[in-house]
Amino acid sequence: MAEVNGPVPSCAPPLVLASASPRRAELLSRVGYRFETCAAEVDESVRADEVPTDYVSRLARAKADAVWESGLTVVASDTCVVAPDGTVLGKPDDARDAIRMLRSLSGRTHSVLTAVCVIGPDGSSSEVLGSARVTFAHVDDATLAGYVAGGEPMDKAGAYALQGQGAALVESIEGDPTTVIGLPLRPTIDALRALGLPPPAFTSDHP
Amino acid sequence: MAEVNGPVPSCAPPLVLASASPRRAELLSRVGYRFETCAAEVDESVRADEVPTDYVSRLARAKADAVWESGLTVVASDTCVVAPDGTVLGKPDDARDAIRMLRSLSGRTHSVLTAVCVIGPDGSSSEVLGSARVTFAHVDDATLAGYVAGGEPMDKAGAYALQGQGAALVESIEGDPTTVIGLPLRPTIDALRALGLPPPAFTSDHP
Repeated sequence: MAEVNGPVPSCAPPLVLASASPRRAELLSRVGYRFETCAAEVDESVRADEVPTDYVSRLARAKADAVWESGLTVVASDTCVVAPDGTVLGKPDDARDAIRMLRSLSGRTHSVLTAVCVIGPDGSSSEVLGSARVTFAHVDDATLAGYVAGGEPMDKAGAYALQGQGAALVESIEGDPTTVIGLPLRPTIDALRALGLPPPAFTSDHP
Repeated sequence: MAEVNGPVPSCAPPLVLASASPRRAELLSRVGYRFETCAAEVDESVRADEVPTDYVSRLARAKADAVWESGLTVVASDTCVVAPDGTVLGKPDDARDAIRMLRSLSGRTHSVLTAVCVIGPDGSSSEVLGSARVTFAHVDDATLAGYVAGGEPMDKAGAYALQGQGAALVESIEGDPTTVIGLPLRPTIDALRALGLPPPAFTSDHP
């Protein structure tokens, strides 16, 4: 009888992460989820008069919609950095753009927004918006040039990675570090749990 | 002539991390340092009337002293969690102790202190004390039991790892995430840079 309330059965609907980001995949894997990844191709341009929170929510939703099919559970998210002057920073175009972005963050506090959209097998969806504040140390141009030359900034919103070498540029954060990395882990788990997919690492029967 | 001010010469004094913690080693490696590790055996008991900041500073110093020899550069650090009631939490004794610690953190805010002691080749030393605040989500006993059963809490101060599955228990932090992980990266780099050991990942000549 215990098996009736036991672990998620192996016939549980497949989980798909609609992202090519290894950071997001690592976060979901970390708590034991097994899933496929499927990068969603969406237009990431900011619309005129679109505020940053609307922008990331729209993109997370668009990525999830692009991948979802009936029977699938899809997790999608989008992250942007809002510079101290209010500019939305996506991924840098090139090394020069990365240095420009990092200079605008040096010695100041910026915001990171990550929206998550989860769509369940029946098409019902839930959304989460995570927000964190990140304060950079004063970083000289030689250090920024070295950081950019190493390549880490090129595929990251705002041109840095908190979970990478970018940790050495950061003085402090206020908020959930996984929001800064690109997938607020706890609320994402809550959304998956509500769909009957608790995190395998936190169930008492995991290996 | 350019080579005179070039990269750190290969005859730079060996760097030693006086810790068995793979988290600390990962942080130093992340910014390109090459080093040996040498776990320092020190008595980790808290002395009567010793405040937490004095405790971690004393242990970081003791670990560095235990490993240092003339000509070596040694990095040592010690981390403790100060529970909401002021109790210093080290590593849990067993699974029951881990659950007790995690219950005392659930739904509340605690402090994490990490002291770093760096001793240079000539015996001169510098110390850093990092402090961060961590707010846990409300976590039910079944989730805590699953987390502890997975084993991650057993060798961690306060019985959780921010860089591991423990990220899913955390609602937010205020401070430097690397202080919570166990080695405040930026101030450690600054101390090493002052000894002529800049981080290889942030120099313009790295691969």
